[in-house]
Amino acid sequence: MTKPLKVALLGAGVVGSQVARILVQESDTLESRIGRRLELVGVGVRNLDTPRPGIDPALITDDLEGLVNRGDLDVVIELIGGIEPARGLVLKAIENGASIVTANKAMLADDLGSLSRAAVDKGVDLYYEAAVAGAIPIIRPLRESLVGDEIAEVMGIVNGTTNFILDKMVTDEVSFEEALREAQELGYAEADPTADIEGHDAAAKAAILAGLAFHTEVRSAEVFCEGITDVTPADIAAAEQMGCTIKLLAIAKLTDDDRIIVKVHPAMVANKHPLASVSGAYNAIFVNSREAGELMFLGQGAGGNPTASAVMGDVVTVARNRARGTASHLSSGYTRRAVAPIGESSAQFYVSFDVVDRPGILAKCAAVFGRHNVSLRVVQQSYADDGRPSDGFPARLGVMTHLTLEGSLSKVIEELNEADFVGSTVRVMRVEGF
Amino acid sequence: MTKPLKVALLGAGVVGSQVARILVQESDTLESRIGRRLELVGVGVRNLDTPRPGIDPALITDDLEGLVNRGDLDVVIELIGGIEPARGLVLKAIENGASIVTANKAMLADDLGSLSRAAVDKGVDLYYEAAVAGAIPIIRPLRESLVGDEIAEVMGIVNGTTNFILDKMVTDEVSFEEALREAQELGYAEADPTADIEGHDAAAKAAILAGLAFHTEVRSAEVFCEGITDVTPADIAAAEQMGCTIKLLAIAKLTDDDRIIVKVHPAMVANKHPLASVSGAYNAIFVNSREAGELMFLGQGAGGNPTASAVMGDVVTVARNRARGTASHLSSGYTRRAVAPIGESSAQFYVSFDVVDRPGILAKCAAVFGRHNVSLRVVQQSYADDGRPSDGFPARLGVMTHLTLEGSLSKVIEELNEADFVGSTVRVMRVEGF
Repeated sequence: MTKPLKVALLGAGVVGSQVARILVQESDTLESRIGRRLELVGVGVRNLDTPRPGIDPALITDDLEGLVNRGDLDVVIELIGGIEPARGLVLKAIENGASIVTANKAMLADDLGSLSRAAVDKGVDLYYEAAVAGAIPIIRPLRESLVGDEIAEVMGIVNGTTNFILDKMVTDEVSFEEALREAQELGYAEADPTADIEGHDAAAKAAILAGLAFHTEVRSAEVFCEGITDVTPADIAAAEQMGCTIKLLAIAKLTDDDRIIVKVHPAMVANKHPLASVSGAYNAIFVNSREAGELMFLGQGAGGNPTASAVMGDVVTVARNRARGTASHLSSGYTRRAVAPIGESSAQFYVSFDVVDRPGILAKCAAVFGRHNVSLRVVQQSYADDGRPSDGFPARLGVMTHLTLEGSLSKVIEELNEADFVGSTVRVMRVEGF
Repeated sequence: MTKPLKVALLGAGVVGSQVARILVQESDTLESRIGRRLELVGVGVRNLDTPRPGIDPALITDDLEGLVNRGDLDVVIELIGGIEPARGLVLKAIENGASIVTANKAMLADDLGSLSRAAVDKGVDLYYEAAVAGAIPIIRPLRESLVGDEIAEVMGIVNGTTNFILDKMVTDEVSFEEALREAQELGYAEADPTADIEGHDAAAKAAILAGLAFHTEVRSAEVFCEGITDVTPADIAAAEQMGCTIKLLAIAKLTDDDRIIVKVHPAMVANKHPLASVSGAYNAIFVNSREAGELMFLGQGAGGNPTASAVMGDVVTVARNRARGTASHLSSGYTRRAVAPIGESSAQFYVSFDVVDRPGILAKCAAVFGRHNVSLRVVQQSYADDGRPSDGFPARLGVMTHLTLEGSLSKVIEELNEADFVGSTVRVMRVEGF
């Protein structure tokens, strides 16, 4: 009887415990699908005292180094998260000949290159579907299904926490702070929500997606990142008026001269765009490819079970390869495309600000835009007779631009902010989907 | 310098010619992604006289048998379509050691089992993303990404011709015949549209999806199949009134006793369901899986470029394996699940019929349903004062049932059709998404 494939699990949190459960409870099914039995030989945790119901206590260890240094592991599933000690452990596991399944976006977005090269050199697999968009198969489609095509753009909602919060701000007409509090109460946001609400989580995912889409390596640090903490009910209302919904988007695309734009920021998304209707904690990724045209992938972006589904899909694939002494050959980071600075990215913008009520003001405002080559698509002027304090700037201008360079728009904002006819805050939000 | 991988193409129609174009024009890019150069060594066609712009005439041959009998092919791309001679040629190619990429749903839905076994025995790859839903990656997600999960249901719009026609019937308020004519004029329907409008195309795709989802083999002949030729403007209007949109659905799910329901039929889809908003020639597939939850995949289901994208994704994957002397190991048809007869499938139904205007008729109608254990969710009675001929049956009853066995519903329809208080045609349509 063929001996089983030995699997080690690093991390037994929400996702890890579900993966451990599946490995044990579905062992027969998995064996049928793989052609070999999987044997869970160790579960590495940080804190031995935490109760781990459903996991055989004999498997649990806090000696993760020792676990990955076993010479007999076929698959190591890394679900610790964070850059270190995860990366060191993964490299050690690869060195010892194990194939890797991970969900660790921070680690991958920091240095996918050296992990990939280590795996290729050793002839083992490195799979990471669970690192981006939970249960939604997106890594494999980018890495394998669309690899005969040319991707033009990837645009997605990849953070469920912020999508839930923005959704709440619309449906309940509450402030960001109130919506965040509710998200935390319901478990959609962490006690320390910084990584989600500041966009860092989405930025790590954007880096991974961009690297795969454009066949190069993109690191988190290269991703322009703006979170949702400054989104106000006034923005939500302005978006609604313009037939849009505000979403935190991760965007990756190419400039005309083949450099990469990769960015995370809130945007008003036209309601006719499929991404506008992605609600609650769902994720969705929209891909535009030369031959395939427009594709969309939608599903649950986080959670123990959905993420475990993605992990297990990778585990079965990797195990099937191990059972036959092979590995997939997926590395394709062959271009030397550079990441362009955000100033060279183009977008449509919605700009709104209060102005004094004097003749000629509209002309002055329009001139500011014109001076920096920013052309206008929609202009709305309204008057503050609704009781809000005006401080001498009772008229409100809302402007949607045509596609314009970020750099040009920055200059416009700078001038407007210094103009004496403009009230305190010039609000800016990018627009997508028109 | 490593010698190139030899590729033969069978078929140079809309998809084949695009694939040939890509193989030649993108040869450098493909080499970077595969690690080896691809050399197109032959293009097999049926008719040598048809002009093939963009394909080197020296490659073109009508001796397809001779082409696949070359002993030196690495990859054979089969884009002829139809069961024979495609299957014979594919088996011959496998016998001669070539890996296969195909888009041939009819061939796969007829006998995937023997093709899979032949490929496994020979140690070559068999990939077929392009066989279902054009550019949308769905075969790989089912075969590889969700293979660690348990799929409960697959439901999709997989035929662009019928989706376009049904869409037209709604937006232009025209008959089926008129919408079909327009589809043909615009190239969305063939001169002989039978395979599409009768649901056979969707049924072949349903068979493939069901087999992958439930780890067994399902053949076209086992798929219950009802097309859209009987859909009327009255049905469209009734659907709209009930907050639904009529779609031709391919559905695969399990009964409580682990048998497979696989069927194609028109259905009223609740507008809140994501599938209801899939318009024109787009395809979308909705998957419900135990761990992953609900997933949706959306994109262009047909056309030269989208289908070529799917073919090329498979070509690169297969070529990467060939370059390293390996093959993927994806076969997983290990269950012996049977396909259950349609009578044992459950669905919600919308039933409408004209009745005489006499006291007690509603009670009689309700009794028919009750006698066969079909419980009612919504009942609407209307009166024909709108000028339409009533022939003594001026009242119209529209009924939406709760989930009920097809077998039970059939008995209800039989009784209603024989009842003297019911007018000529009892119309029935299944309902999804409530």
